[in-house]
Amino acid sequence: MDLGQHPSVKRAVLAALEEDIGRGDVTSTVTLPPHLMGTAVVLAEAPCVVAGVFLAPVVFAAIDSRVATECLVADGAPVGPETAVVRIWGAAAAILAGERVLLNFLQHLSGIATFTRRFVDAAAGGSAVIVDTRKTTPGLRLLEKHAVKMGGGVNHRFGLDDGILIKNTHVALGGGTDAVVRRACAAAPAGLRVQVECRGAAEVEAALAAGADSLLLDNRSVEEARELVRLVAGRVPVEISGGVTLENVAAYAATGAARISIGALTHSAPAVPLHLRIEAAG
Amino acid sequence: MDLGQHPSVKRAVLAALEEDIGRGDVTSTVTLPPHLMGTAVVLAEAPCVVAGVFLAPVVFAAIDSRVATECLVADGAPVGPETAVVRIWGAAAAILAGERVLLNFLQHLSGIATFTRRFVDAAAGGSAVIVDTRKTTPGLRLLEKHAVKMGGGVNHRFGLDDGILIKNTHVALGGGTDAVVRRACAAAPAGLRVQVECRGAAEVEAALAAGADSLLLDNRSVEEARELVRLVAGRVPVEISGGVTLENVAAYAATGAARISIGALTHSAPAVPLHLRIEAAG
Amino acid sequence: MDLGQHPSVKRAVLAALEEDIGRGDVTSTVTLPPHLMGTAVVLAEAPCVVAGVFLAPVVFAAIDSRVATECLVADGAPVGPETAVVRIWGAAAAILAGERVLLNFLQHLSGIATFTRRFVDAAAGGSAVIVDTRKTTPGLRLLEKHAVKMGGGVNHRFGLDDGILIKNTHVALGGGTDAVVRRACAAAPAGLRVQVECRGAAEVEAALAAGADSLLLDNRSVEEARELVRLVAGRVPVEISGGVTLENVAAYAATGAARISIGALTHSAPAVPLHLRIEAAG
Amino acid sequence: MDLGQHPSVKRAVLAALEEDIGRGDVTSTVTLPPHLMGTAVVLAEAPCVVAGVFLAPVVFAAIDSRVATECLVADGAPVGPETAVVRIWGAAAAILAGERVLLNFLQHLSGIATFTRRFVDAAAGGSAVIVDTRKTTPGLRLLEKHAVKMGGGVNHRFGLDDGILIKNTHVALGGGTDAVVRRACAAAPAGLRVQVECRGAAEVEAALAAGADSLLLDNRSVEEARELVRLVAGRVPVEISGGVTLENVAAYAATGAARISIGALTHSAPAVPLHLRIEAAG
Amino acid sequence: MDLGQHPSVKRAVLAALEEDIGRGDVTSTVTLPPHLMGTAVVLAEAPCVVAGVFLAPVVFAAIDSRVATECLVADGAPVGPETAVVRIWGAAAAILAGERVLLNFLQHLSGIATFTRRFVDAAAGGSAVIVDTRKTTPGLRLLEKHAVKMGGGVNHRFGLDDGILIKNTHVALGGGTDAVVRRACAAAPAGLRVQVECRGAAEVEAALAAGADSLLLDNRSVEEARELVRLVAGRVPVEISGGVTLENVAAYAATGAARISIGALTHSAPAVPLHLRIEAAG
Amino acid sequence: MDLGQHPSVKRAVLAALEEDIGRGDVTSTVTLPPHLMGTAVVLAEAPCVVAGVFLAPVVFAAIDSRVATECLVADGAPVGPETAVVRIWGAAAAILAGERVLLNFLQHLSGIATFTRRFVDAAAGGSAVIVDTRKTTPGLRLLEKHAVKMGGGVNHRFGLDDGILIKNTHVALGGGTDAVVRRACAAAPAGLRVQVECRGAAEVEAALAAGADSLLLDNRSVEEARELVRLVAGRVPVEISGGVTLENVAAYAATGAARISIGALTHSAPAVPLHLRIEAAG
Repeated sequence: MDLGQHPSVKRAVLAALEEDIGRGDVTSTVTLPPHLMGTAVVLAEAPCVVAGVFLAPVVFAAIDSRVATECLVADGAPVGPETAVVRIWGAAAAILAGERVLLNFLQHLSGIATFTRRFVDAAAGGSAVIVDTRKTTPGLRLLEKHAVKMGGGVNHRFGLDDGILIKNTHVALGGGTDAVVRRACAAAPAGLRVQVECRGAAEVEAALAAGADSLLLDNRSVEEARELVRLVAGRVPVEISGGVTLENVAAYAATGAARISIGALTHSAPAVPLHLRIEAAG
Repeated sequence: MDLGQHPSVKRAVLAALEEDIGRGDVTSTVTLPPHLMGTAVVLAEAPCVVAGVFLAPVVFAAIDSRVATECLVADGAPVGPETAVVRIWGAAAAILAGERVLLNFLQHLSGIATFTRRFVDAAAGGSAVIVDTRKTTPGLRLLEKHAVKMGGGVNHRFGLDDGILIKNTHVALGGGTDAVVRRACAAAPAGLRVQVECRGAAEVEAALAAGADSLLLDNRSVEEARELVRLVAGRVPVEISGGVTLENVAAYAATGAARISIGALTHSAPAVPLHLRIEAAG
Repeated sequence: MDLGQHPSVKRAVLAALEEDIGRGDVTSTVTLPPHLMGTAVVLAEAPCVVAGVFLAPVVFAAIDSRVATECLVADGAPVGPETAVVRIWGAAAAILAGERVLLNFLQHLSGIATFTRRFVDAAAGGSAVIVDTRKTTPGLRLLEKHAVKMGGGVNHRFGLDDGILIKNTHVALGGGTDAVVRRACAAAPAGLRVQVECRGAAEVEAALAAGADSLLLDNRSVEEARELVRLVAGRVPVEISGGVTLENVAAYAATGAARISIGALTHSAPAVPLHLRIEAAG
Repeated sequence: MDLGQHPSVKRAVLAALEEDIGRGDVTSTVTLPPHLMGTAVVLAEAPCVVAGVFLAPVVFAAIDSRVATECLVADGAPVGPETAVVRIWGAAAAILAGERVLLNFLQHLSGIATFTRRFVDAAAGGSAVIVDTRKTTPGLRLLEKHAVKMGGGVNHRFGLDDGILIKNTHVALGGGTDAVVRRACAAAPAGLRVQVECRGAAEVEAALAAGADSLLLDNRSVEEARELVRLVAGRVPVEISGGVTLENVAAYAATGAARISIGALTHSAPAVPLHLRIEAAG
Repeated sequence: MDLGQHPSVKRAVLAALEEDIGRGDVTSTVTLPPHLMGTAVVLAEAPCVVAGVFLAPVVFAAIDSRVATECLVADGAPVGPETAVVRIWGAAAAILAGERVLLNFLQHLSGIATFTRRFVDAAAGGSAVIVDTRKTTPGLRLLEKHAVKMGGGVNHRFGLDDGILIKNTHVALGGGTDAVVRRACAAAPAGLRVQVECRGAAEVEAALAAGADSLLLDNRSVEEARELVRLVAGRVPVEISGGVTLENVAAYAATGAARISIGALTHSAPAVPLHLRIEAAG
Repeated sequence: MDLGQHPSVKRAVLAALEEDIGRGDVTSTVTLPPHLMGTAVVLAEAPCVVAGVFLAPVVFAAIDSRVATECLVADGAPVGPETAVVRIWGAAAAILAGERVLLNFLQHLSGIATFTRRFVDAAAGGSAVIVDTRKTTPGLRLLEKHAVKMGGGVNHRFGLDDGILIKNTHVALGGGTDAVVRRACAAAPAGLRVQVECRGAAEVEAALAAGADSLLLDNRSVEEARELVRLVAGRVPVEISGGVTLENVAAYAATGAARISIGALTHSAPAVPLHLRIEAAG
């Protein structure tokens, strides 16, 4: 299913339009000549990885079915400054009514793709892929995880229902690593692997002995992480998370871990600037 | 109406829960003892301005009506590191099912409040208040604008329907400042003021002559802005936007402008870290 | 955004269809030959101002995408008796399934437009425009305010969020005209004016001194209204409301007030009769 | 099921609140002291039949669950002038936020109940009951039909799916009264009667011969109606519709018809005036 | 209104797609070449009566508007083994994404149609038609009642609002057959008949004397039923229900009853097997 | 999250109520004394495994918040004939309004649980657990999969997004077992295992060599299945599906397979009979 057709994406677009347009665009009503048609482009102002251009037709279809849009670059493409990424034809009032919502999506998703790309590039020398987390903006998870992929990242589980990740909390509430991991391995749905968070060598060995399919090392220093990855010795894949920055990601990626998960990809990526320019009207 | 009861807020919470929980929390199901009850607190990890704690009961009411929550600080309160901001009692599985969604809201909204507070403090010496824009995250506008207020900022219009802001685009499409502003002043709903974007002295004078109620100076240097504010000479309030940073906001605030609007408050505020800690279970 | 595409309008149309069609049109099922096609027109029976014809394609698109419609007159047009205003082609069963819902919208909205036109005409000699209120039929506000415009009226605020109107209640609860209006002027969003209801000369002067942008005189006699408008002396626009009828609207309009608001435009306009006629079938 | 709990009624209330409150009540925000509590009553201004008081808790539950309401009169009760019909306790801002929506429902539904009562009283000497039609306001059919009952009227079918009414259009499209009525009687669901519109003696006899369970005489003069009712001679019940006014309803009711259906009950009933009064605050 | 366009049917299709596709089809994503197009047919594996083929375009329109579908047989058609009933063209990933949902609808509805046909055939010698009940699968009533028709059955009332059926419970709660039936006949909406459940001769006579329009004999043996039908002697139609099987339906149908209603038609029809076959891809 | 609180379950309950109650229960309205209160129990008529009793409060909360319910047995409990499973107190009209919807859920879900239990018991001697499929009734998947668990079965993946199952179609479209399975193993999300359908020894070996985590044998005879399981020799778990009946399930379970998946559990389980009995009223 095309992501732009996914029910949760369509709902997100409609919610955004309703909160921005409300009962109608007063400014256009009191300033524009009636029946004015126009052509516009959306321009990326600075170099970035673009994500979300496929939302342009979704946004404008909800406003005025007679507006036409063309995506000028593919999602995930790196673009230079002042690059046109979407072109729009239609009633000027309709173009302006959808402008801000489309830009808000594009600046946010392209921000995530661009920020992810920086981590991916910084970690390029190591063995680890860059993955996202569930620390996403409420209502936008599918789109944000898509943006991570556009930036070269890899998606972790999408929710609590399509992956098992046993954290310290579960271990503490459930009676210790051994008991909890054994119970989980026995009860896990057949299609799901069991990942276990470990804080040190003892927990690593306990988790592996109990049947863990992969491990998570959270908030470990580079040195600790390297040590624990060495201890695992390839028996299962290891993921690192917590405290990863653009400065230290290369060091973490060089520990031999398979994955580095970074919440900031989705919760703290700065927006990239884009704007809409009217090219012609009449 | 309490913001937590607003239909668009409730929809945002439900959408977030549906995308995170999906068909159910597999990990808790396969690790936790049945019927385990617990108490938890949400802790701010670093100093920040908290926003969104009133969402805790909204989140958990949708998961399990028997979970109780208590807000330990008021929204907008500055808190120190490791401060408990919300306490939660109920089934451990329910607490963990809502944990990530509540944290995602809190980290995002508190990030905006904290970032706004930094701009407000930096601009404190000048005459201008810090205001937000429509550059918000799709679906979260009411909550984000609330967070801006919690950080000491002031809200600009909420959408295209509750304020008139004539931008360069409208001027270009509508036949020039004079014609457009006159038309707008004549046609504007009685309760709304007419704000006009101006790029230089000529446009300022034209807009004022045509009846503008307030002006917007977008992407002007501090010097240009100071000059134009002086030209306006208090006839109407002046708003500055574009290119405002923590470094230059004090200079802009000293120009005599009434308002400085900053898109980054809502589109690029880094998340503030919070986490949930189980205090007791049994 | 085209009003027929507004989410709240589409929801209103769907709700109307669901309540009228329910599980299906039994009568057509048991009486009509299968596959019968037809052409029909909607006729205004008496002279009126038509409003809502743009809903015809919205109604039938929800029933059967193969039905075609053509609006034969523009919204707001005055039409004579037995004038065709919409033409419809398609399956006879589909035409009959949508007939009543379309007519219910048209008779109601055209009733408002026609009733408004009568007030506008009656007030034509004075300085005041005719404006609507928030006394609208639940669920139909956008459409009813559109109908008021089609009848020559002007729209007041659309809701509690796009205009400030301080009524006696606010004054009483907030500590008197002076205190309340000053507080409101200080706290009002930058784009909104402050309108204040006043019952006599003292309140008028207090409101003006405190910074009111416009005044409302509610339930004043023509003489009182004339006196108070004279007192305001053009300092701000004055609106009159309460007890305005077709008989006295000219007198109120001659007081010098800028606006006369009339709840009856939307809550008590009698429906205008329209019906559907099958022109051809086969 | 309590009407106030019916899904379509709850949707109507929520839609009304969303369109009136929008993003929040600006006026209360900028004028009222925070945390102000109050008591209010809704007063009928003139004698009327009240309908819709059960909506008070539905409206306020959606705004603020801490607001309490009490219905002071039963739905359908005739009340004198300045009668309190609902009492409300809670936050002043919440009371004012729901005031207009509650009043809009009450003035509309009580208007219908009051208007219906006038027809019922005018027709009291005859044999016919007063019934409603499908000419209702879009989205409010269940409530409006309830209001008709409160005014002493009787409900006709609620939609196209719970009754068979063969109109001239069906007869024309389906091949004549005899063929259409026979087909309908054969195919009608077992629980539904077949009603047939007739324009003269020939159609009456044809419909009865073909098995009609009841007849509709539309747009007949009193004399024609009396003649045709006499012709039917009690074989089936007869309904009269079209052109019925307060002036002639008694004459129609004296024809011996069983029912008189009047679209104006729901599409043209003038609103009855009600208002909200704050009784105490602090 | 085409059943595939009915709001409740569209909601059922969307709900089915959301629960099956969730956040996306992982298997297709990780196995199929991008941009692969294909043609597929849906095949009935065994002889059956097909129902629901009109849902194919509804299902795929919600997934990918570029998928085309063709219904190869009419709903209600009996088909032999390995008969193609729907053909689909489009992106292979889209076809596979909708496969299971379409098959789930078809296997369920065709199961009902086929099961109904067996009862209809078994009862063919008698006077009674086979009718359904309200014992349907939650959310699918309109579709299941359509499937019953496709199998040659007749629909009973669709819900509690379009038919009156006085059961033993109503009789017991309301004060006995005579009182309850008289009250119901007096208060029934004009378009609805009154059906009464009777357990023996005394209740039959009481119901008829009180004005019942038709009777229901529930859980009577064939002999009891025959006796009671004879007692009714054609005064009103009689329906039989309870304990009817393929083995005894002919005997019940020979009692002279007009209708035999069977809950198993919709609650216990076994699914008929269908599958999708890719015919070409590239 | 309690299953009864899951959004998709609540939507299913509301949809069922809307389609059954429609505009209201006419029969109760015309037969029951107003204000009649009552107590009722839901009784299982025959021995069965009960599932879905937790829906009783969900159903009645949507009808009348004053109705109280008590679940008398736990979901999954085997009950004897004429066992009361739910007790209900409240207005008689409310109890009757919800009766059919609650029974429709219970008879369907208990039917699945009971049918599953028969397969589980029949397979008890072997090594395999009984699992469900995606062949569920549209809209009811979460509930039906719960019912399977209540009958002693185990749940397979819930949708296309939480499990990878490479079928023949994917193999054919993707270029053969080796290529497709290698591609899938490389691209699969980290938390998901890769299951591959195999039709014979060659495909089994190819799939295992390419990295498959588990295998599916579809439509194999007992002998073929036993042979292929022997070939796998415990390297990965094997699932059997297709053509499994109560008669042959023991033989399949004795092949050494880990799982036997059966579509009929959810698509062809006959309903179990339950009814509601009024115990007291007044």
